Amino acid sequence: MNLWYREKHTENQILSVKVTDVIHKEKTPFQELAVYETPEYGTILVLDNYIQVSDQDEYIYAEMITHVPLFTHPNPKKALVIGGGDGSAIREIVKHPSIEEAHLCEIDERVVEVSKKYFPQMTVALEDPKVKILYKDGIKQVFQSKDEYDLIVVDSPDPVGPAVNLFSKGFYEGVYEALKEDGIMVAQTESPYFNQDVMKKAYDDISALFPITKVYMAAIPTYQSGFWTFTMGSKKYDPTNVENMRKQDFETSYYNQNLHYGAFLLPTFIQNILEGK
Amino acid sequence: MNLWYREKHTENQILSVKVTDVIHKEKTPFQELAVYETPEYGTILVLDNYIQVSDQDEYIYAEMITHVPLFTHPNPKKALVIGGGDGSAIREIVKHPSIEEAHLCEIDERVVEVSKKYFPQMTVALEDPKVKILYKDGIKQVFQSKDEYDLIVVDSPDPVGPAVNLFSKGFYEGVYEALKEDGIMVAQTESPYFNQDVMKKAYDDISALFPITKVYMAAIPTYQSGFWTFTMGSKKYDPTNVENMRKQDFETSYYNQNLHYGAFLLPTFIQNILEGK
Repeated sequence: MNLWYREKHTENQILSVKVTDVIHKEKTPFQELAVYETPEYGTILVLDNYIQVSDQDEYIYAEMITHVPLFTHPNPKKALVIGGGDGSAIREIVKHPSIEEAHLCEIDERVVEVSKKYFPQMTVALEDPKVKILYKDGIKQVFQSKDEYDLIVVDSPDPVGPAVNLFSKGFYEGVYEALKEDGIMVAQTESPYFNQDVMKKAYDDISALFPITKVYMAAIPTYQSGFWTFTMGSKKYDPTNVENMRKQDFETSYYNQNLHYGAFLLPTFIQNILEGK
Repeated sequence: MNLWYREKHTENQILSVKVTDVIHKEKTPFQELAVYETPEYGTILVLDNYIQVSDQDEYIYAEMITHVPLFTHPNPKKALVIGGGDGSAIREIVKHPSIEEAHLCEIDERVVEVSKKYFPQMTVALEDPKVKILYKDGIKQVFQSKDEYDLIVVDSPDPVGPAVNLFSKGFYEGVYEALKEDGIMVAQTESPYFNQDVMKKAYDDISALFPITKVYMAAIPTYQSGFWTFTMGSKKYDPTNVENMRKQDFETSYYNQNLHYGAFLLPTFIQNILEGK
């Protein structure tokens, strides 16, 4: 079987990954969902023709979108993940002993169900009594919450389809209000090579609301260009203030506390984009 | 014209880049050389079916393989680049005012000639009176030199074809001898995702010779996995000792002196590979 998954990064670039088995394929009420077996990355989850997670490299994104804000916060108790139905961000969040409640707000129940079936290592924490799954629009959950969360993770797909509104200033205003007075938000903000407009707009919108806004980066081979940005908005704690960082007390595969600091030391061209130069 | 350049990263992954014009194609005595025009990356230079440089992102590799060692050295006067016939590393090296001589040792004259024709912004420094081009095997040049260079840059293609010997311990021994008593070498050591064996072997071989050996990283979208490592061997100066770093006195597009430090703060999985865990 000479089968390849092809992902269009732009009109002018395509990544092809060899597929040895089509494990699952459906059209949910929200998106196209597929699970493929690949020799390069193990099992991969694809939504609307973008790889979301793979067995091989899911830990990078999951660790970096959660541990950077969580070790910045002195005592995070309650966290919300918007999107992220694959469960990997929640799995990392509950590793922090101070966490009492972790809400997963995923609009598409099928993503959670399919992930439970084919990605047991990612969904392992979804049965944890601290974890509550809400099958609803993340925007609704945010606007129904006030002063409630220590951390909100916007683990959205790319800004196409239902995720477009998760990249809007109005949404970030809701996130700001849903956070406690010393809360932190973090959003995945795409490739600094291929999606500079998305990254810049998210940075501008978040920094218009939060006194401390910082962009950090991670290398994720299954994502466009292999390089990814995250934008953190924080009401009180500076993630680059190493003195105040909580000490890491469990093992990780990508994140570490030197890297935590280093991930904020950006290439000049990214600084220039963020500063509008 | 629906033409695509396809690069096999592994047996199981292919990157396809749209091509609007085949500008040049030849078989040199050493390798297959092609120049394509692409909407995504501008003009690209391809050797033996691996993208070497593109108009769009060549500055990343060129800056990172040169400025990290050069700002580590207090007074670099004489540098040697092995490979690198596209001229971009030399262009960066002569930006340092202390540099008196920069040798480019490229085995394949055709790479230089074709680069001069199609990549004027990369080859701009090759006419500089400080620059001397040697069309010979880099291994010969290294073993004919003793105590001569402040910096040796091993700007090799991937370890296939003529470049295999540039990844050997014997070669690094020659590099060590060709360096002055406080000299520094740096080699490109491939993707930490796709070429872990190459990276690990280079690190082991270099650290068996040099008292200070450190790996650093950069995000290069046209290279496999988008993420790349460089391994530096230094006889005296520690590149992570920020106190001693020379101050940057010209503009760059990727490199900056915070990033210089941050580039050495590695993800845990890379640390584990290097430590043989």
